[in-house]
Amino acid sequence: MPLSRRDFVKLGAVGLAAQWVPGGLMLPGGAQSGAAPSGGRPIGYAVVGLGRIAGHYIDGAKLSPHSKITALVSGHRDKAERMAAQYGVPTDSIYSYEDFDRIASNRAVDAVIVCLPNSMHAEYTIRGAKAGKHVLCEKPMAISSAECAQMIDACNVAHVKLMIAYRLHYEPITLKALDMVRSGRLGRLQLMEGAFGFPIGANEWRTNKALAGGGSVFDVGIYCVNAFRMFAGEEPVGIQGQVSTLDKGDPRFAEVEENVAWTMRFPSGVMATGTSTYGSYMGGFCRLHGQSGWLDVSPYGYQGMRVQGWCAAGADAGGSMVTIDETSEELDPLQFTHETDHFSQCILENRTPTTPGEEGLADLVCIEQIYKSAGVNL
Amino acid sequence: MPLSRRDFVKLGAVGLAAQWVPGGLMLPGGAQSGAAPSGGRPIGYAVVGLGRIAGHYIDGAKLSPHSKITALVSGHRDKAERMAAQYGVPTDSIYSYEDFDRIASNRAVDAVIVCLPNSMHAEYTIRGAKAGKHVLCEKPMAISSAECAQMIDACNVAHVKLMIAYRLHYEPITLKALDMVRSGRLGRLQLMEGAFGFPIGANEWRTNKALAGGGSVFDVGIYCVNAFRMFAGEEPVGIQGQVSTLDKGDPRFAEVEENVAWTMRFPSGVMATGTSTYGSYMGGFCRLHGQSGWLDVSPYGYQGMRVQGWCAAGADAGGSMVTIDETSEELDPLQFTHETDHFSQCILENRTPTTPGEEGLADLVCIEQIYKSAGVNL
Repeated sequence: MPLSRRDFVKLGAVGLAAQWVPGGLMLPGGAQSGAAPSGGRPIGYAVVGLGRIAGHYIDGAKLSPHSKITALVSGHRDKAERMAAQYGVPTDSIYSYEDFDRIASNRAVDAVIVCLPNSMHAEYTIRGAKAGKHVLCEKPMAISSAECAQMIDACNVAHVKLMIAYRLHYEPITLKALDMVRSGRLGRLQLMEGAFGFPIGANEWRTNKALAGGGSVFDVGIYCVNAFRMFAGEEPVGIQGQVSTLDKGDPRFAEVEENVAWTMRFPSGVMATGTSTYGSYMGGFCRLHGQSGWLDVSPYGYQGMRVQGWCAAGADAGGSMVTIDETSEELDPLQFTHETDHFSQCILENRTPTTPGEEGLADLVCIEQIYKSAGVNL
Repeated sequence: MPLSRRDFVKLGAVGLAAQWVPGGLMLPGGAQSGAAPSGGRPIGYAVVGLGRIAGHYIDGAKLSPHSKITALVSGHRDKAERMAAQYGVPTDSIYSYEDFDRIASNRAVDAVIVCLPNSMHAEYTIRGAKAGKHVLCEKPMAISSAECAQMIDACNVAHVKLMIAYRLHYEPITLKALDMVRSGRLGRLQLMEGAFGFPIGANEWRTNKALAGGGSVFDVGIYCVNAFRMFAGEEPVGIQGQVSTLDKGDPRFAEVEENVAWTMRFPSGVMATGTSTYGSYMGGFCRLHGQSGWLDVSPYGYQGMRVQGWCAAGADAGGSMVTIDETSEELDPLQFTHETDHFSQCILENRTPTTPGEEGLADLVCIEQIYKSAGVNL
């Protein structure tokens, strides 16, 4: 029963529209939220760090009925003022990193979105929590599992919610694939493969170990680690990894490795192999092999998500192809819309996000084991 | 410059036709072989073991201008007599395993094809060599690298040629992919992924450790190990592996594991991840990621081989899709034709096969390292 792209666009629009009540929010069961902590208005977000990913959040939030960008945090006042003017953010809701903690008194800000280089995630998550703001933090959650634990503690102590921005947990086509796996359409899951990579530019912060934590598995390989854990539905009990760099003299790889290859073994016996690189383009995919079918989920970019595969129709039947058609480029911001919308609803309804801090911690534990197995000190 | 399936069929037919001279052989350079050790007649093969794979060799040899099945070796005289009658093999060229060594005096037999369970490869290769026959041995070459070394020694001592039956080294579409990689069409090779598996039946000899040596990596994972080494063009310096079985009570996996996942690191920095299984169908593929393109080579079955991918047309160009179209089912026996034809020509022209014993040994070394890393005693 293939669903076309158009079906999905329609479903998505209907889903969002059904929950959107101007000035309020329709909760599950039909009750209208009067006690929303933000008084019925959308959740107000401060975007911390105005790099490329921040633009995706700002575009995505515009389409979310429950989210609004209400503050910006940047080391570049000029850039922040330009963006504030463009998106209707008041000038007095622009913060520098030095006066970030003043955000505590900004009642238009319910939550912060941490879009900084990896090594700064822990500090700004903890400062955000101490300011009484919920935190939506980009992946990787931090550069060590110890930092992740501190971030979880800080948010618990401050009674604020913490969500790690694993956008594919909220992407409708990926969720359809997950539903197929969980409902047994592929039979028992057996093996998974995944890969993700791109040729990184010179002088990117991602090749600075102090800022990035490590190489390609921190930035893109983590998608595969996370997808394997999501589809397996359990935590790995055995992890091995190797790292390599093709050209030892390449200045991009003076501090971090270029390639990572690893295996993950889960308690059920399911196993996965992953590769990531900063050396060439690998669009990002997860191939799932079950005992009666398989699925390819790809790519991991911001558009064109497509699931294809084959499922046995019955014990002795010939089976049938499965296609969940690709999304188009025009849907680009929707991945961020789904994500911020989920967090906003979790805040409004006092629910735990699908990808809380513990999800980010679990991935960091895996990544640390990959490096340990590879003999690399982080 | 995509080549269609028809192009390939034509190329293959032309290639074979050009070398086929009735009663003789057109050698490279146009000289006709008069000094062929078999006096101009095709190389005569004894098929040792009459299981499923033997049928593929018999069908394949029928299409080879340089090969002919001239003897059969089996523990089942009735079956051997039926097949002998069907394929024009004289009754006095049927051997049992006990009287196999008598084959030394059969002048119609130049070589043996060892199609037995893995644990018997070493014995029949060595006995074949001692009988003065060249040996074409199925993969895996043996159940240990020590056995492989003994087989190589025995063939060297007997001055006979030894080839391991890696059919994809002789399969035209795979060779086209290899040529694309070696000529730099993908840029520098970076990462590879591979997988191969099928749901094994109950009571198959492949699940008997004494006969098979180990689980799925011995039978199907070896295709990936071999493809990685072939495309990388070098020997790995780091190998890791894990094994698992989904259902510990499944009698098929009482002696051998069901799933294997591994990584291979090559001196250049190229890395590969592989998986194999006896639990579900994975058609077999190798995906090659280069710095300016990628290729999918699949499947590893006997038909429908297809190469697809993308290559950058130039430094800043948009690139182009590459498709080497699939072969059809009717070409099934040709993979075995190419293989036996190559070995026959090596014998006739006194050349070393593309996949000599050392190629089989190298794969066994890798497989032993996978198991060692997984903590499994072979």
